[in-house]
Amino acid sequence: MVGVVALAGGVGAAKFLRGLVEVVPPGKIVIVGNVGDDVELYGLHISPDLDIIMYTLAGIVDEVKGWGVAGDTFNCLEMLGRLGFETWFKLGDRDLAIHVIRTKMLREGYTLSQATAQLCKMLGVKAKLIPMSDDDVRTKVQAGELLLDFQEYFVKRGTMDKVTNVVFEGAEKAKPAPGVTEAIDEAERIIICPSNPILSIAPILSISAIRKALMASKAPVLGVSPIVGGKALKGPADRVMASMGFEPSAYGVAKFYGKLLKHIIIDEADIAHKKRIENLGIKVTVTNTLMKSIEDAVRLAKIVMEAE
Amino acid sequence: MVGVVALAGGVGAAKFLRGLVEVVPPGKIVIVGNVGDDVELYGLHISPDLDIIMYTLAGIVDEVKGWGVAGDTFNCLEMLGRLGFETWFKLGDRDLAIHVIRTKMLREGYTLSQATAQLCKMLGVKAKLIPMSDDDVRTKVQAGELLLDFQEYFVKRGTMDKVTNVVFEGAEKAKPAPGVTEAIDEAERIIICPSNPILSIAPILSISAIRKALMASKAPVLGVSPIVGGKALKGPADRVMASMGFEPSAYGVAKFYGKLLKHIIIDEADIAHKKRIENLGIKVTVTNTLMKSIEDAVRLAKIVMEAE
Repeated sequence: MVGVVALAGGVGAAKFLRGLVEVVPPGKIVIVGNVGDDVELYGLHISPDLDIIMYTLAGIVDEVKGWGVAGDTFNCLEMLGRLGFETWFKLGDRDLAIHVIRTKMLREGYTLSQATAQLCKMLGVKAKLIPMSDDDVRTKVQAGELLLDFQEYFVKRGTMDKVTNVVFEGAEKAKPAPGVTEAIDEAERIIICPSNPILSIAPILSISAIRKALMASKAPVLGVSPIVGGKALKGPADRVMASMGFEPSAYGVAKFYGKLLKHIIIDEADIAHKKRIENLGIKVTVTNTLMKSIEDAVRLAKIVMEAE
Repeated sequence: MVGVVALAGGVGAAKFLRGLVEVVPPGKIVIVGNVGDDVELYGLHISPDLDIIMYTLAGIVDEVKGWGVAGDTFNCLEMLGRLGFETWFKLGDRDLAIHVIRTKMLREGYTLSQATAQLCKMLGVKAKLIPMSDDDVRTKVQAGELLLDFQEYFVKRGTMDKVTNVVFEGAEKAKPAPGVTEAIDEAERIIICPSNPILSIAPILSISAIRKALMASKAPVLGVSPIVGGKALKGPADRVMASMGFEPSAYGVAKFYGKLLKHIIIDEADIAHKKRIENLGIKVTVTNTLMKSIEDAVRLAKIVMEAE
């Protein structure tokens, strides 16, 4: 029986989920992960958002960066640089083991969701993590004349470009991975993690069967705003929202999700938006949403699980 | 114009070649490398003997071990172990970069010889290193009832088994890689490096077109004995020769190569074998064959290049 379905991007989602697994038995959690950011580098299939979640739930994430494996080294990458390859994607040596094994499994005919399930098992992650799709959906970022692969925009160019459009290549034909819509149908509660709405959650919603299942679900959909006081806690969410015509605020996040959302949890810094959001027909809980420790994440997860 | 063709195994050959490139312009050297030891681990194609030669000629080899990259770390391997995989093959993090890129190139349709040429270029190796074949030839070691993959015998089980037979799977159908027989035909001098005759050189000779080209070549074939004072300088050559019915000595090495060999360079410790080898119709040069330094290797290479 599925208790909770969580739609998740990378670092922000992972921090929240680290708290959620302390509040809800992990076996009752299905995490639908964004794989629009996936990239093939050096012939290896890398799923950055899935990895961040796996490493975080396995307790091996680099807590300072929020991604990668704690205490990792970068000697393989250094050698790749010596061989003449670009090294802007910071691939750690321990991290690499995951990509090598994922790639091996995909070559052997595993789907991405099967490979992810295996990796979770190997890492001792008990919540069920499912990529949104086993088909290729790739987030492309338009910045004026430039059409960039997501990781080019995000890592190589350090989010310096003004995003004018976002495209989810392959989304039209993509099917949800097995178990995604079933979990949504069965869920008692659906959570949109505090992730970038446009770059991390929209890729998941770009798959029509997932969007439809969410709209049809009887379970309440609750969101946590990733924007606090007009600023993204991490990454370019505020700038991307602004350049895409959305107010970079908790209100803008609520408006972006619109009818999908029953209830949004916003930060105390954004109390001024409460009324405006309620006017959209969306309930609001105001609390401290900053997650500086696991205790913070647990407290926030409890609030999300108690919201109605 | 090819000056020298060298048939090469791993560590012993690499040490000798490190000297040879100081004596002969690297552009005039073609190294035919053993790939009977190749292994696929974690979905990566590993060519241990080619790697040892590349790392040595690139000046990045771990001088103490004779293989792997100097100062390498093993964090990816540690993580693979944590994921539940076997870790008996000591894959370094820097080392891994080579295997990742080789595998990428093979997946993209490069042949092993094309991939090797690219890797040599990236590493700044100027001598031409060609794998004996682009086809799969796999050395299998029979030890009584057990039929072991080479690396299982060599690394996993630490050469503890008594070898009763050696099989080169795929050799019958394998063609030499492009350039191998052409180089042999053109060579002014052919050198059999101080490698394990049965496990490192015999796989190369197991390809009939290579064997025929060597027999037909007008160039003298010179060998350096890898056995000194009845002991292999490294590895199990002495034990394997004994268990396969060959005398584990410089004489046994000469006898193993037989008609192929015009001249063998043996160590001063083996001077007692000189006459016996000459009685086989093979010329003998006696010298200090130990290579404890590059200077030793250069001196030995000079002797091999001056022998007639």
